[in-house]
Amino acid sequence: MSGDTGFILICAALVFIMTPGLALFYGGLGRRKNMVSNMFNSVFVLGLGIVLYALIGYSLSFGEGGGTFIGSLKNIGLSGITKDSMYSETLPTYAFIAFQMMFALITPAIITGSVAGRMKFKALFIFISLWSVLVYYPLAHMVWGGGLIGAKIGALDFAGGDVVHISSGMTGLILAIILGKRYGYSQISYRVHNIPFVMLGTGLLWLGWFGFNAGSALAADGLAAHAFMTTAISAAAACLAWMFIDIVKQNKPTMIGACTGVLAGLVGITPAAGFVSMFSALIIGISTSFVCYFGIALIKKILKIDDALDAFGCHGLGGIWGGIMTGVLVEPSLNTVREGAGGLIFGSFEQLGAQILGILATFVIVIAGTLIAIAITRIFTPLRVSKRDESIGLDTSEHGENAYPSFLGLD
Amino acid sequence: MSGDTGFILICAALVFIMTPGLALFYGGLGRRKNMVSNMFNSVFVLGLGIVLYALIGYSLSFGEGGGTFIGSLKNIGLSGITKDSMYSETLPTYAFIAFQMMFALITPAIITGSVAGRMKFKALFIFISLWSVLVYYPLAHMVWGGGLIGAKIGALDFAGGDVVHISSGMTGLILAIILGKRYGYSQISYRVHNIPFVMLGTGLLWLGWFGFNAGSALAADGLAAHAFMTTAISAAAACLAWMFIDIVKQNKPTMIGACTGVLAGLVGITPAAGFVSMFSALIIGISTSFVCYFGIALIKKILKIDDALDAFGCHGLGGIWGGIMTGVLVEPSLNTVREGAGGLIFGSFEQLGAQILGILATFVIVIAGTLIAIAITRIFTPLRVSKRDESIGLDTSEHGENAYPSFLGLD
Amino acid sequence: MSGDTGFILICAALVFIMTPGLALFYGGLGRRKNMVSNMFNSVFVLGLGIVLYALIGYSLSFGEGGGTFIGSLKNIGLSGITKDSMYSETLPTYAFIAFQMMFALITPAIITGSVAGRMKFKALFIFISLWSVLVYYPLAHMVWGGGLIGAKIGALDFAGGDVVHISSGMTGLILAIILGKRYGYSQISYRVHNIPFVMLGTGLLWLGWFGFNAGSALAADGLAAHAFMTTAISAAAACLAWMFIDIVKQNKPTMIGACTGVLAGLVGITPAAGFVSMFSALIIGISTSFVCYFGIALIKKILKIDDALDAFGCHGLGGIWGGIMTGVLVEPSLNTVREGAGGLIFGSFEQLGAQILGILATFVIVIAGTLIAIAITRIFTPLRVSKRDESIGLDTSEHGENAYPSFLGLD
Repeated sequence: MSGDTGFILICAALVFIMTPGLALFYGGLGRRKNMVSNMFNSVFVLGLGIVLYALIGYSLSFGEGGGTFIGSLKNIGLSGITKDSMYSETLPTYAFIAFQMMFALITPAIITGSVAGRMKFKALFIFISLWSVLVYYPLAHMVWGGGLIGAKIGALDFAGGDVVHISSGMTGLILAIILGKRYGYSQISYRVHNIPFVMLGTGLLWLGWFGFNAGSALAADGLAAHAFMTTAISAAAACLAWMFIDIVKQNKPTMIGACTGVLAGLVGITPAAGFVSMFSALIIGISTSFVCYFGIALIKKILKIDDALDAFGCHGLGGIWGGIMTGVLVEPSLNTVREGAGGLIFGSFEQLGAQILGILATFVIVIAGTLIAIAITRIFTPLRVSKRDESIGLDTSEHGENAYPSFLGLD
Repeated sequence: MSGDTGFILICAALVFIMTPGLALFYGGLGRRKNMVSNMFNSVFVLGLGIVLYALIGYSLSFGEGGGTFIGSLKNIGLSGITKDSMYSETLPTYAFIAFQMMFALITPAIITGSVAGRMKFKALFIFISLWSVLVYYPLAHMVWGGGLIGAKIGALDFAGGDVVHISSGMTGLILAIILGKRYGYSQISYRVHNIPFVMLGTGLLWLGWFGFNAGSALAADGLAAHAFMTTAISAAAACLAWMFIDIVKQNKPTMIGACTGVLAGLVGITPAAGFVSMFSALIIGISTSFVCYFGIALIKKILKIDDALDAFGCHGLGGIWGGIMTGVLVEPSLNTVREGAGGLIFGSFEQLGAQILGILATFVIVIAGTLIAIAITRIFTPLRVSKRDESIGLDTSEHGENAYPSFLGLD
Repeated sequence: MSGDTGFILICAALVFIMTPGLALFYGGLGRRKNMVSNMFNSVFVLGLGIVLYALIGYSLSFGEGGGTFIGSLKNIGLSGITKDSMYSETLPTYAFIAFQMMFALITPAIITGSVAGRMKFKALFIFISLWSVLVYYPLAHMVWGGGLIGAKIGALDFAGGDVVHISSGMTGLILAIILGKRYGYSQISYRVHNIPFVMLGTGLLWLGWFGFNAGSALAADGLAAHAFMTTAISAAAACLAWMFIDIVKQNKPTMIGACTGVLAGLVGITPAAGFVSMFSALIIGISTSFVCYFGIALIKKILKIDDALDAFGCHGLGGIWGGIMTGVLVEPSLNTVREGAGGLIFGSFEQLGAQILGILATFVIVIAGTLIAIAITRIFTPLRVSKRDESIGLDTSEHGENAYPSFLGLD
């Protein structure tokens, strides 16, 4: 066999580990009494999302004969696909599915950062099921399956700025607004729980992101290597930029800042990874850190929206910024939809216009789908836990578990 | 070079990380005072097992000119193999060895879950050495090396249901019975130590399992991608099923339940990964969770066997169930030993019979080998630590270490 | 595409995870009050090192038209390279850069183990920047870029004994001497903080090392598989050897010992991985453990140098020993610089002489470059934190963070 199959399967495995990584990241950043809940909210998606994707998600995203807005029902339950089906000349369809499926898992997991500490698990379970069908699968189709945003509008989204980051971040924002703030928000300061987990989670996310972005070339070739390098450079530059802001603002670089910077840089480069030069990746990394840093301050301190673990502040804003910057910085030689047309810095508004249109289309779909999903969820359950349950912590109230039932005593 | 070599080497690396992952899983599930011991029991196998495999294991498993029950002594110390030796047209022998070797590490590591909290490390070290020679290497030969179970009986075992899971689980059960219960068993409840480690350990195990099952195609092809997908689907379905049982039984989904479900689903699909359809993988995942859930209750509560961290309850039972289900659900087009013959649901008892015979043969070898290994071990050392050592915890008594010598005080 | 591209990119991703792994390892081995600092010192290198490597490091290491001591300025900012540039017939230049870049990250991260608990972060940041330019990039060129040590002297260094381990270890030693001891050194015993993190860090390091050593074949071929196997065997043998020493010395095998043994074995085999037989790998593993064990005792107890987390004791000594053993044990058929010439055991002093010369040349470059870098750093900042800051811990004084702001109380 060619080298593509193995590469894409391993990339899928690396993307898989992002979800446990995100669970550690969110758990570590959250409050002690919600440690299990924050982790659970991320990782249950591995169970729900895979089953849903196999049953209906793949077909709705990439099923044969799809149109402008959605795939089809022809490959429901992965019917019609065998181990000999080929997605491209060198890539079996199952390898393509495995890779795409992992994106459909990490995306809803990201959302859960916004609802930390107050959303009922039952409501989250129903919401994520609906949201996957109403938002994620159509959006994946519209961007990568020959639909509205990718094929019609001609927006570039290399590895999921629209599909993964804007969609999850926007959804998180809407949920955070509708759920309302945690009790005590902006009156007491919520203490972070575990910084080593934040570091390790970031490491696993970054590891997976190499698979995420490089694998999006869907081949083990020079473009994959290109995307690997832009990913590294953007994340690193964003890390340094956030450290710089930390030092200017409070005289000390912090681990939480450095890790958040890495994430911002990874998000920012995601739509652009295979389209921009190495130097542009540096610019994207640095600028995304600034956008996210001041955006988070705006959201949390000025607008007083309780985007608890910065799902919107990091993924939403970073994704929007990255999508725009793709239109600004795309290299003519790397533009796969408008051959030879560069970004704004090359004097053309065309791609930038398409990027903005693509982002706006994403907004519409995400807002509409999320509101519908919330409305349906409310039929079955309230969204928010009781004040008492929030106060004792969701680990106990929603899962009956304590993250460290025995830690100090030697029992 | 072809893509197979790189794929199999990376899969071997992913299978490698399963053992540290299992160490976290067992450590987190066990008691605080045995944290180092539970981790050590898993990871020392990386040291012992690799040396043993290179010296004698590979030769006894896959050495040239092997027979029905065991390989040969012709490749002792990996003699006769060079970097240019080829296992298949596209796979160097060293890559095949690296991959197989990792299976010979995780298998004895699994066993150690059953003996947590009471087995002497010295006894475990001797036992695992003997067991590898008496049970694992012959079994790997019999299943995958052209021996009794694979070639003669014609049982299907894609990635190690018999070789890895039934063998380790059964061995764990025997050891748990012979060692006896921990003091206080079923009188006091042992508190779990660290749920984030359980989650992270499960994540690393699942990551490795993709390499484990997909790599068992021994090529980067459509079959590997098929096995990757069945693995994902079974684990996810089993996770949901266990969450469902948790909710029915105690009204809340737990992290420990969800993680145990994932493991059950991974074990269940292991023998079947390349032989069954996606829908069958779903069935295997769901059913294995039920089998393991009620099996564990039976073992621990009714039979009162102290299978401390469920090595038998999860790997033994899941492996048996998965092996049987392979005989029930194997697709005619994917059956590699009986071309065109499907499982029970296709109206044929033949493959199911072979599966059951294969499992019974595994039982015989495991029980005989384990009892001999225990008998020899006892010549050198008692199996169990003293009551005093068990009471103060094996971290201190067996390793002279405390998992967190300094945690709270800022020293 | 061929299988090489995907393999090398995935290997680069695996090498990437070594730095977060090292951060956990160092954090876990260090003191509680320096947990964030020890992690930060490792992982900030991911930010700084990637940006620096893209800007200037690659060009100084492998730029077109390099000479005996250093590359060139022709590829500054990665100019002149596109996604279609090829390093070899099957490997895109960007994939080669990605892989090499990861080596330039883990190397300075290793150094930081020697300075734990007392070096100012600002000084470390400046020092690592200078050191990368003055030491690492030239050394990488001299060994692998057709320069002094590889091409002229003809020393063998498969995956970075000289470049990575001797250079980082020696640098750590010099810094430890110049910084001086931590207060209370050899009067009070510093308690280790977190053994599970040490175990997990070691696991991630070992995982990455498979990519590190096997990927150094720069192709997915039999040589990569050979290097994978020698890596496994050496690490495993070293683990057993350290356990043996622990048992002889204090009657119990310890987790910290087993993990340090693994690292020693990995370091020892690094220069030799593709050049020696499997049996020689076993010898290297066992002997490196003894060298490091007694070397660490010598450095810390006799010479009273505060090599806090054993960067020199493990990487420096292990690297020197491994380099020498490569000259002793190299197989004639695997020798890539002197075809047909074996090591000392084959009766030839030639390769051993070249190895020793290579190590001495490494010493000269490292000592000179490190002293210059220290001198320049001192212009900007003192190297060491104040006694008060050291006493309250670097987490608080340098980063304003506590590793576990909320752990026990359920807030």
